[in-house]
Amino acid sequence: MVDLLPPGSIIGILGGGQLGRMLSVAASRLGLKTHIFEPNQNPPAGQVADKVTTAPYDDLAALGQFAASVDVITYEFENIPTAALDHLENLRPIHPNRKALASSQDRIVEKNFLQNLGLNVAPFAQVDTLAGLQAALQTIGTPCILKTRRFGYDGKGQVRIDDIAEASTAFNALNGAPAVLEGFVNFEREVSVIAARSQNGEVACYDPGENVHRSGILHTTTVPAQLNLAQQTDAVILAGRILNALDYVGVMGVELFVTKQGLIVNEIAPRVHNSGHWTQNGCLIDQFEQHIRAVAGWPLGDGQRHCNVVMTNLIGDDAYSRDANIGLHLYGKDIAKPGRKMGHENRISPISD
Amino acid sequence: MVDLLPPGSIIGILGGGQLGRMLSVAASRLGLKTHIFEPNQNPPAGQVADKVTTAPYDDLAALGQFAASVDVITYEFENIPTAALDHLENLRPIHPNRKALASSQDRIVEKNFLQNLGLNVAPFAQVDTLAGLQAALQTIGTPCILKTRRFGYDGKGQVRIDDIAEASTAFNALNGAPAVLEGFVNFEREVSVIAARSQNGEVACYDPGENVHRSGILHTTTVPAQLNLAQQTDAVILAGRILNALDYVGVMGVELFVTKQGLIVNEIAPRVHNSGHWTQNGCLIDQFEQHIRAVAGWPLGDGQRHCNVVMTNLIGDDAYSRDANIGLHLYGKDIAKPGRKMGHENRISPISD
Repeated sequence: MVDLLPPGSIIGILGGGQLGRMLSVAASRLGLKTHIFEPNQNPPAGQVADKVTTAPYDDLAALGQFAASVDVITYEFENIPTAALDHLENLRPIHPNRKALASSQDRIVEKNFLQNLGLNVAPFAQVDTLAGLQAALQTIGTPCILKTRRFGYDGKGQVRIDDIAEASTAFNALNGAPAVLEGFVNFEREVSVIAARSQNGEVACYDPGENVHRSGILHTTTVPAQLNLAQQTDAVILAGRILNALDYVGVMGVELFVTKQGLIVNEIAPRVHNSGHWTQNGCLIDQFEQHIRAVAGWPLGDGQRHCNVVMTNLIGDDAYSRDANIGLHLYGKDIAKPGRKMGHENRISPISD
Repeated sequence: MVDLLPPGSIIGILGGGQLGRMLSVAASRLGLKTHIFEPNQNPPAGQVADKVTTAPYDDLAALGQFAASVDVITYEFENIPTAALDHLENLRPIHPNRKALASSQDRIVEKNFLQNLGLNVAPFAQVDTLAGLQAALQTIGTPCILKTRRFGYDGKGQVRIDDIAEASTAFNALNGAPAVLEGFVNFEREVSVIAARSQNGEVACYDPGENVHRSGILHTTTVPAQLNLAQQTDAVILAGRILNALDYVGVMGVELFVTKQGLIVNEIAPRVHNSGHWTQNGCLIDQFEQHIRAVAGWPLGDGQRHCNVVMTNLIGDDAYSRDANIGLHLYGKDIAKPGRKMGHENRISPISD
């Protein structure tokens, strides 16, 4: 039976960045409270959460008090230390589950999982040594990308290799971290599917969005993506298979390359996703509320879209618009470091346009 | 010059109920923080605000500290004690201004203000004594409604009089409070216009919504209202005149009776309004963000509506829907007292329907 949390219940969220902030706001709409666990002082989510615990992830006492104060636990990022999870999952339900986290925390585990499901991924090889990298380069060829197996995000922990002679420089750039060499995919476009699965096993997907990156960071997501009906169907079915295979509960971001040979899964993120921010102004129930609904045992929204949307990230000191016709979402961060995500804007237009 | 508050600024809000809660959420989208001042413990807005001060309105020291911690002050209800306002307005800007509050705190002042603008109001007479009521009944006739001049809301502080013989009972029911006798208006429908005015003097109105009450409390607001184009235009122009006359900054709710003889102003509320909750799921920029934008010196949204909406209030222990196609908004209140507003639901449909 599903544990359907009533209003007044408390959702514990690991991580207090912008995703935790927008999850907190969504929870408030459902009459639910949030408690943020975050190592850093003054997290963006703290401004809108009912409660904040500031403590490192190895503070088991703080984790225990946090767990005791909440009804269910979720997270806004996938790199939660294993020991913290071991401790928490004995105390309260955690959604999405451990299997989902394990499959996304390590690029090799993730690719093996996806391949075992019969899905296509880019050619890859495990790299632990410089000799291993040199051998892998023979198989994969150039251009290719060397990525750390764990803890990569927004293009961090990645080095592009255009020539075999760059092997040693690239290997050193990752400081000896366990890595994976990925072949370059000659894709037409990158899209992502924001998919959700409830505790009852129902799956709902938003329309795929088309992503454009700049300097390794998402720049825009445009909905609808330029996909034919077969590609749209494939994308949604594929996402559903991933969620069902993981017995997943919550929202997942599934990044896909669209190629002449079909869809290739780039990566999966077991959480609300930057490429789903358009849902805030394009759908009645956005990805943040969808995630909270799933985690709280509520039925999902159906993902229906009422507008076309172009989402643009505001990075570093990007100017933002105070215009009338833009859905503006700022994250309440104090300092605009270069490359730091400060907010995003959603421009909407009627579907009929 | 307009004082345009940058992200990171703090909006002080007097009152921590559901309106303050939804104002806080809207402020967070713009990267602004909120500080709630509220006499009651654990206010609904406290769950999503950056800071809460719990103190009575006659605690001048607490008011002073509150004012010192914020950049601008606004409020979620019109019945703020005069002495508190006197103290606060020497310390920080307050929007909407004192004139707007004075015009809405007292039904006689409000009606005189509206009449002086050349707008139609229901026939009314000031009532201070039983003899005065009996005289007024001769002029106004029955049926009519005796209302306290101040502090009425949601049908409270009102007695309907169907027969002159009920005068004494009605007068006693209000415990001798200064009152106004209002003639019954034979209206076809009640609509309200949610209007906003910026610090630059620009005015933006949302489409009028049609209101249905139950037991003196708003039950539904339906957008679009059943109005012909001339009525729609009149409603918007009339609202604009009120805001301009008050040099108003922020969102105002203007309740109108639609009669065969034209529009009659029922009452004005110098704040975000229950009949504007549909904007949360019908517009890119909702009434709460619109109010925060005005108060913070930002340009307004244009009020454009992208869906038809039916808003239904959830009162007392009304069941709410967890359905996929309803925008649910619960207020985080613990106890569902009879008549207490616990939340609302927005059902949307395409404009083309």
